Amino acid sequence: MDLVIGIDIGGTKTKIGLVDKSGDCKDYLFFRTKDYELLDDFLDKIKHSVDELTRKQKGSLNLIGCGIGAPNASSRSGTIENAANLKWKGSVPILEKLKQRIDLPMRIMNDASAAALGEMLFGNAKGMSDFIAITLGTGLGSGIVANGQLIEGYDGFAGELGHIDMTLGDGRLTGLNVKGGLEAYVSATGLKRTILYMMSKYMVDSRFRSIAYNDLHGEDITKAAEEGDEIAIKAFDYTAKIFGLALANFTAFTQPQAFFLTGGLVNSGKWILDPLERYFEECLLDVYKGKVKILMSGLPEKTTAICGAAALIWEKHR
Amino acid sequence: MDLVIGIDIGGTKTKIGLVDKSGDCKDYLFFRTKDYELLDDFLDKIKHSVDELTRKQKGSLNLIGCGIGAPNASSRSGTIENAANLKWKGSVPILEKLKQRIDLPMRIMNDASAAALGEMLFGNAKGMSDFIAITLGTGLGSGIVANGQLIEGYDGFAGELGHIDMTLGDGRLTGLNVKGGLEAYVSATGLKRTILYMMSKYMVDSRFRSIAYNDLHGEDITKAAEEGDEIAIKAFDYTAKIFGLALANFTAFTQPQAFFLTGGLVNSGKWILDPLERYFEECLLDVYKGKVKILMSGLPEKTTAICGAAALIWEKHR
Repeated sequence: MDLVIGIDIGGTKTKIGLVDKSGDCKDYLFFRTKDYELLDDFLDKIKHSVDELTRKQKGSLNLIGCGIGAPNASSRSGTIENAANLKWKGSVPILEKLKQRIDLPMRIMNDASAAALGEMLFGNAKGMSDFIAITLGTGLGSGIVANGQLIEGYDGFAGELGHIDMTLGDGRLTGLNVKGGLEAYVSATGLKRTILYMMSKYMVDSRFRSIAYNDLHGEDITKAAEEGDEIAIKAFDYTAKIFGLALANFTAFTQPQAFFLTGGLVNSGKWILDPLERYFEECLLDVYKGKVKILMSGLPEKTTAICGAAALIWEKHR
Repeated sequence: MDLVIGIDIGGTKTKIGLVDKSGDCKDYLFFRTKDYELLDDFLDKIKHSVDELTRKQKGSLNLIGCGIGAPNASSRSGTIENAANLKWKGSVPILEKLKQRIDLPMRIMNDASAAALGEMLFGNAKGMSDFIAITLGTGLGSGIVANGQLIEGYDGFAGELGHIDMTLGDGRLTGLNVKGGLEAYVSATGLKRTILYMMSKYMVDSRFRSIAYNDLHGEDITKAAEEGDEIAIKAFDYTAKIFGLALANFTAFTQPQAFFLTGGLVNSGKWILDPLERYFEECLLDVYKGKVKILMSGLPEKTTAICGAAALIWEKHR
């Protein structure tokens, strides 16, 4: 069976899987990215993980390539550049170094651009020529498709919408020290920061007054909202308001037919999505109102990013 | 000689010209858009203007088409939709109505998208596959080229960057009632509004304290800056700061190789361009620093928009 290795390098987890032509992820595993201080150790771990996955496959196996999605990756140079949520700083020649370990056709791209390609090949964006995929993990990533093509940019760094400043230079700092950058508000991390902000602004009681920032998890915030915790509800509303405005702004750029959302924050369901939908329509220019959908990814949640990475190779085999 | 009629419908002026294959505008004229309350009178005026221009041409003349650039124009439906700076409200079927008067192949597009196409065919963007053209007139228009193609959007309304909100919904209102919309700050009108804002904020003397808003013109503001008027200098700096941040944000979207600026505000020269360059580089993500140029249009100023409109037709004859 022909399979592609899909690797998603995230700020928290790295996921590796084997994906067939239809986008079905046959098997996958993951490990904590932050456990690997040194790039070489991290790449050795990837190599071992691939060996483990292939060993477990039954029948004959034909690996036709390896696709990698990573934050701040340049498709043109094969490097990761100054990623806010990764330990390895500067310009990291990841493609070259991984090729020394895995001898296969290889392609790397911004993780969210890979996700967009996965959505187009295997998911809910089949047949769409204008859409934007947004990944909401530790940060906020984006992949932009217009005129039926992925927008890569002059040297491969297009689609860094998590670092767009929405506050005239007067807001929170992102991990890259961007003032007012969108992902400082709209991401798993952004939501946690907003919990702190709301507790600083209001005096109402909340379960979060007895939980330290480092012990705070997205699922807890959803659970708290369900139990009526006012701080949690206010935090979701605030996040949705900024997110809705951001998506309305993005619409004025390439006028997508739809946005596709994936990642941790989406699991908060109605708490984020209901107010998002409302604020989004409110902020849209009249000329766009009622024309732009906010949709969920059509790929299985746990392997969305892996399928996206694999799509980088499968795109070339159609 | 083969010529194309290029028509640029602006908030203040409508310009009409005859353009050859190399982008040379053989002759042109203009009239005030606002003098025509009724669309039919306006279209009659266009028809008469075209007749006047063609009569004056010597030698045999072969008109091969008519390209139109207009604010809020949809390339797909041939209409102008709710343009903030035009008198005719709602959905205006301009292409259909003009065809009744001028029997030629016709194409309409957002004026700034047309300008981008003109820059690519005839100007300084020849050979570039990723760039953004910004027109700074009564409002702020934009045309986006990525992967060597104009981004038109799902139904032809991409590139409305003048209406992107930079202030988390808490800023000036544009003519379309968009809160914090970029063109409320960065445009000829925006600069005039900033003169008022600076006089409200500071008590320093200024020549503008004795000039009414309606009597204020861009050229006066440049002249005042040259004479050391503090309010004028502060207004340029404030405009450039917001503009620089906006261009840095746009870079994170499609990562253009260059921005091309045209329109009235650019005539203020160093007063706007020097601080713009500084703020822009300051706001850019590290990964983009030093890679993105801010350039002027390579087309003659008075006919830039006409050449852009004509490019809509010439693009199809290459």
